[in-house]
Amino acid sequence: MHFSIDRKYFYDKLSIVSRAISVFSPLPALSGICIDLKDGSMILTGSDSNISIRTIIVPGELNNLDIEEEGSIIIDSKYLLEIVRKLDCKNIEIEVIDYSLVRISSDNGQFNLNGIRSNEYPDIDFTQPNHHFVLKATDLKSIVSQTAFACSDKDQRPVLTGVNFNSQSNMLYCSGTDSYRLARKTIELNSSQDFNITIPSKSLTEVVRSISDDDTIDIYADFKKAQFVFDKTIIQTRLIDGTFPDVQRIIPTSCVSKMLVDSYEIAGTIDRTNFIRNDKVHLIKLECSTAETHVKTYSSEIGNSDEVLTKCEYEGEDISLTCNGTYMLDAIKALGCEKVLIEFSGFMKPIKVSNPEDASVLMILVPIRSYD
Amino acid sequence: MHFSIDRKYFYDKLSIVSRAISVFSPLPALSGICIDLKDGSMILTGSDSNISIRTIIVPGELNNLDIEEEGSIIIDSKYLLEIVRKLDCKNIEIEVIDYSLVRISSDNGQFNLNGIRSNEYPDIDFTQPNHHFVLKATDLKSIVSQTAFACSDKDQRPVLTGVNFNSQSNMLYCSGTDSYRLARKTIELNSSQDFNITIPSKSLTEVVRSISDDDTIDIYADFKKAQFVFDKTIIQTRLIDGTFPDVQRIIPTSCVSKMLVDSYEIAGTIDRTNFIRNDKVHLIKLECSTAETHVKTYSSEIGNSDEVLTKCEYEGEDISLTCNGTYMLDAIKALGCEKVLIEFSGFMKPIKVSNPEDASVLMILVPIRSYD
Repeated sequence: MHFSIDRKYFYDKLSIVSRAISVFSPLPALSGICIDLKDGSMILTGSDSNISIRTIIVPGELNNLDIEEEGSIIIDSKYLLEIVRKLDCKNIEIEVIDYSLVRISSDNGQFNLNGIRSNEYPDIDFTQPNHHFVLKATDLKSIVSQTAFACSDKDQRPVLTGVNFNSQSNMLYCSGTDSYRLARKTIELNSSQDFNITIPSKSLTEVVRSISDDDTIDIYADFKKAQFVFDKTIIQTRLIDGTFPDVQRIIPTSCVSKMLVDSYEIAGTIDRTNFIRNDKVHLIKLECSTAETHVKTYSSEIGNSDEVLTKCEYEGEDISLTCNGTYMLDAIKALGCEKVLIEFSGFMKPIKVSNPEDASVLMILVPIRSYD
Repeated sequence: MHFSIDRKYFYDKLSIVSRAISVFSPLPALSGICIDLKDGSMILTGSDSNISIRTIIVPGELNNLDIEEEGSIIIDSKYLLEIVRKLDCKNIEIEVIDYSLVRISSDNGQFNLNGIRSNEYPDIDFTQPNHHFVLKATDLKSIVSQTAFACSDKDQRPVLTGVNFNSQSNMLYCSGTDSYRLARKTIELNSSQDFNITIPSKSLTEVVRSISDDDTIDIYADFKKAQFVFDKTIIQTRLIDGTFPDVQRIIPTSCVSKMLVDSYEIAGTIDRTNFIRNDKVHLIKLECSTAETHVKTYSSEIGNSDEVLTKCEYEGEDISLTCNGTYMLDAIKALGCEKVLIEFSGFMKPIKVSNPEDASVLMILVPIRSYD
């Protein structure tokens, strides 16, 4: 194997495939990037066996790829990225010089790294699943930023660590929940689909880190895996087994009262009281009436707080509810709008938080019983 | 106790005194800031018993300080800083409302925090030691940035965890060493002095974080403590007991060869090989001759590297030496100049690294025996 390539271009591609690689891989080969030169192109592969990323570099003006001899090798991703990032030259040359010893040469020097022969790389099946739909990168980014935060980070119920993509006819419902809160984004698809899959939120985060705003993402899925394809790159992830809870039934259909509040003000108010915690949980009490809305906190150890929201329009019956302040703040941030609409469906009943100007996204919080 | 003050100004002063406070303080009172209103001013104190910071706020236009009732209280520094930083108003009001309950009020709300009565605060002796000299803030900053990095971070020989300030007549020699390397900065003083003290490098770092470039720093010292005084603030630190090694005798007085190298090039070369380590130590081998200078690394596990320095003028006998690459890089960075002069005094003898245009600072590295 022997090739030369534009350093900056190569670094960008290595960065993308390295996102799949875990530093704690039990299999030495998986801590490396597999470089495969064949049929006049370069294939880079990185994987942690849950998520796998493959990108193809075809020789062209942008990348200056010049293949002198085909072949393949696995190089430790940490070391390879560090060298390629730090070298101070336009092109670099990489060559397998002896069995698995890799020589990386720049203008004034060279590195010899111990590589791993590519036959030790596990066989990763990149065959394309049959369900296919298309999303704009910006849509996929908002799905992930508006739902993935609500997923569970605990492994007790694995299905809750992923975002559920549920499509009926041409509507796609994306939901993240940890059973105390729900974030849901709805997108209209170009084609009619019928599937229900749950994608690990970690994989989705890696996908959105790799795509540019003007990309169009082809998504292929079956009951075992999903592929995100863009710009000669495939990001493939396993799906999470198990039945995702029916979240539709916890979305309240009516409300007893609602308030329209300035996002900046309520977010600031909640954030300021963040340190007043009970058993590490940040509880806030909303005391709402048409006269005034208070945000209160209380901790016997630390102290208490009481702030009035000044930019708040409230209508409906008086209500007083306690909820998780961190969850409320996450929901307001994920909506990312100037004003948020908070709808109450009754005492100890789910609270709906939404953007009054965008019906495609909604957040649900479950109140917490407090004894004060 | 009851006062109001400009929020931003108060936050800046709280930040300075909070630098002395350790989150792991065994004494609850020491995790707080002591606020003391008396004789028409406010005194803020923070301490971890090794380092203590006190600042005085006198009512004025800049701070809007308005004292309604004198008194004192201790408030947890983490919570106080968080509230004062996050509040969204110009002035804040603080009042002890009941025994040790503190009310912090802004335009739209209030916090009630559990404080600690000030009689639980340890007595900190701020009397002024008798040796006195003056340094410009910029000089003190360069002393610290050019010597503290070389101090030891291990507690086996406590005296090496500090920077030694040794004054003879009107010269001040500041030295940091961990016994494998030495960094020394020399400053000319306005007055003749005679002292030899070792200040914890951690304390010095806190001092330079608190001063502005146009400050003038009054330094008072005796054999037990040192005080840095500026802008109504006193930073007081205990000194480290023990005799600082006589570092003068390891500074080579002659050399067998020397090279003048481009700092950016040699720093880049060393930095790129940072991951090629042996037992976690980054060893570099300098192979110098008038024809070429090589920087080489070798690790049986990871691989090896070989780079030639292109911007390098070498004179004297050929030499080949191994040294700690991290230490060499630290030294070059601390010098902060375009070209560095590296002088060799012989095989396995100390290497001197300096700025050819500034004789006030020098770095010494001890070579390492390598068997390759």
